[in-house]
Amino acid sequence: MTARTVPADANELAQQSRLASLDLQSATLAQKSAALHRIHALLAERKDQILEANKKDLEIAQKDVESGKISSALYKRLDLSTGDKYSVLLQGVLDVDKLDDPTGQVSLATRLDTGLDLYRVSCPVGVLLIIFEARPEVVVQISCLALKSGNAVILKGGKEASHSNQALFQVIKEALASLPAGGSQIPPTAVQLVSSRDEIATLLALDKYIDLVIPRGSKQLVQYVQGATRIPVLGHADGLCSLYLDASADVSKAIPIVVDSKCSYPAACNAAETLLIHKDALPIFRDIAAALGKNGVQLHCDPRSLAALGDADVACSEANPEADYDNEFLDLVLAVKTVDSLEDAISHINAHGSHHTDVIVTEDKEHADLFMRKVDAAGVYWNASSRFADGFRYGFGAEIGVSTNKTHARGPVGLEGLVIYKYRLYGSGHASADYGDGKKPYLHHPIAPDSAPHRFIN
Amino acid sequence: MTARTVPADANELAQQSRLASLDLQSATLAQKSAALHRIHALLAERKDQILEANKKDLEIAQKDVESGKISSALYKRLDLSTGDKYSVLLQGVLDVDKLDDPTGQVSLATRLDTGLDLYRVSCPVGVLLIIFEARPEVVVQISCLALKSGNAVILKGGKEASHSNQALFQVIKEALASLPAGGSQIPPTAVQLVSSRDEIATLLALDKYIDLVIPRGSKQLVQYVQGATRIPVLGHADGLCSLYLDASADVSKAIPIVVDSKCSYPAACNAAETLLIHKDALPIFRDIAAALGKNGVQLHCDPRSLAALGDADVACSEANPEADYDNEFLDLVLAVKTVDSLEDAISHINAHGSHHTDVIVTEDKEHADLFMRKVDAAGVYWNASSRFADGFRYGFGAEIGVSTNKTHARGPVGLEGLVIYKYRLYGSGHASADYGDGKKPYLHHPIAPDSAPHRFIN
Repeated sequence: MTARTVPADANELAQQSRLASLDLQSATLAQKSAALHRIHALLAERKDQILEANKKDLEIAQKDVESGKISSALYKRLDLSTGDKYSVLLQGVLDVDKLDDPTGQVSLATRLDTGLDLYRVSCPVGVLLIIFEARPEVVVQISCLALKSGNAVILKGGKEASHSNQALFQVIKEALASLPAGGSQIPPTAVQLVSSRDEIATLLALDKYIDLVIPRGSKQLVQYVQGATRIPVLGHADGLCSLYLDASADVSKAIPIVVDSKCSYPAACNAAETLLIHKDALPIFRDIAAALGKNGVQLHCDPRSLAALGDADVACSEANPEADYDNEFLDLVLAVKTVDSLEDAISHINAHGSHHTDVIVTEDKEHADLFMRKVDAAGVYWNASSRFADGFRYGFGAEIGVSTNKTHARGPVGLEGLVIYKYRLYGSGHASADYGDGKKPYLHHPIAPDSAPHRFIN
Repeated sequence: MTARTVPADANELAQQSRLASLDLQSATLAQKSAALHRIHALLAERKDQILEANKKDLEIAQKDVESGKISSALYKRLDLSTGDKYSVLLQGVLDVDKLDDPTGQVSLATRLDTGLDLYRVSCPVGVLLIIFEARPEVVVQISCLALKSGNAVILKGGKEASHSNQALFQVIKEALASLPAGGSQIPPTAVQLVSSRDEIATLLALDKYIDLVIPRGSKQLVQYVQGATRIPVLGHADGLCSLYLDASADVSKAIPIVVDSKCSYPAACNAAETLLIHKDALPIFRDIAAALGKNGVQLHCDPRSLAALGDADVACSEANPEADYDNEFLDLVLAVKTVDSLEDAISHINAHGSHHTDVIVTEDKEHADLFMRKVDAAGVYWNASSRFADGFRYGFGAEIGVSTNKTHARGPVGLEGLVIYKYRLYGSGHASADYGDGKKPYLHHPIAPDSAPHRFIN
């Protein structure tokens, strides 16, 4: 831990984060908990000061709303003073404290030989870089999740929230700096904030200091980050979720699933964008379309599904196959396509979907299983809404983001996505050359995960 | 699965692999086992033909050895005909068949609500690109491990083994093509081979088709691959492992550990390159150095350790601190440095090591724990040789490679490194909008992993 707290540049800042992360590797659960409680107390104490800073952001944003530069939705997301938003923010810190420690978990314990025991133990990834837009409460949420998982974090927020972000960050830094001496495993540099976009380009090149990048925001932001770095990126650019109504789909299940998947929050990444209908299920489409119509949904239908609409009271037009089936509408619009078979539905989804969450509605158990095996997505659902794809709904107690990656963490990611593992081997002078053909054999016996001379959590 | 089997270019080849991987997602254990047995049978049947091809590579290599272009060690690695090498290759196929299926494993099972059950189930990553040098048996090993884990694989071998690689590949392709019709989940395009370096550059850009790259070979190869792609890379460029003799180190444990770590296979990535000695442990260094001397080791010592050598019979010179502590000698050379404290040793290792495997020799349990927590490496060992860092020694039954990554897989990687997971959600018309404040609560109860309507392994 270096004495300087204001780094000259992004390179030095990242280096400080790396040093902080090495200290954090030995932070105990009690030390991490004390830090979270200190942050909670200081955020409560400094509420007025933070809302004052937030007001500055809101004043600037108000002008931008008036001149049409930003949306009123973005303005609302910026505002920390409305309703119970600040108390929810405070409660969030205590909620993180109550989560299980993701570090120190033993996932493998093997006796290689008498007195030679191997343990695979979860530990922090190291240094996280989180890039997010607008919402200032993310500064607090992510800092707490990073500390809980023993990671150092570099935060880059949107410029619209810069005063709020800075105020929240200063309180967190001060809270960490005021920990008792025993808290030296959690230096104030464990959480850092950068504000300019130039610094991001520099940070994305620093794979020697930064272990994981998590962009939270628009498709454009995620794609920019994915293209600009060799550091692993956790996240997803698209959320093109599909629903497939199989030949045997039950209309009483299909209606709530389709309506919820499309309408409960159309701007979410887990909202449905495409509805595939088996040709034999077209007779139930009229009722489904009517239910969507009541919720203000516009349909873009292929000729067969358009013909099946009958007199359903719903806005509809013919689909443009070149565009509609690859479009994340993020709005009350749904592309509809008729397919001739389960296999055609699976092929369509694997070719056009974003591998986020896809749903089959069917009464046929074997079809459900084939769909769930062959659709290459983070979530494959049978008779349930795509909107359940969420860390809180899954019971993780937190969500770092949703990943469509094929390595490390996939789907809604909780604290487990912020840890990796190391192997601990305990011997008493053991040499590898003593084992092998004609020499000592390995035992490779499973042993109790808690049989190590050390406790891995404390 | 497309009808063409000779792709026009690397792009089409990768696309075929992607389609094959989608078929493989529903391959059963029985189908995968049948494929491995068919490969084994055909490799046995075609032994003469393969050794004939191998002979062509050896003839060219022989000339290159004579003209000094390649080493005799590389020549030896190319040769499939010596000793029991071919029968070991054949046995390897059956050994892979005996490994547990890494797919279909349930790592989380939660009841979200009555009739709404969530399972996290391991599944293949998708398409692997493996780039390796010389050893032709890697074609067989990796193809079998890929099939066992349900992945499609694109292989790129070294040009020195091109005839052998092509012959082995043709046999594997023919074996897959000759599977009974029920084996259509394992198309012949599940395994593909490319030979020119140009194709590699193209493939490394195809992140839409390829999910994971594993370079197996020199530091230069790994660094080239890491720098040339956005696809996740599993591997390690360096293997700079360190040993630290703590103040309380027991010389009777230190000697076998240091000798084995340095001498049992100096060219291995898990061999020790640096020996750190606490100043209070210098008195035991003479005996350790004498044991190293007997094994032909040269020491590069800092002044304090040089002075402690006494009359030990060992080749030694003064270390160059600018170079020796960052050097992977891969030879019978060991850099030695005296440190004043455990913390200094940890800092040195985190700054100069390659995060592969590091060892503390100590009788102090607390020091061992601090070292194992704070050293940021894939393996942290107490009183054991660094050479145990190996998939077979860990009991994995296979090793895809050794990873120093901080995401996905770290340390020696077995079949588990070739799988990810998907979430399966089973409902009966459930909608997310029915849950939340003032509505239905989530249960989030753990349930039995095998309580799903489907078996995930079959």
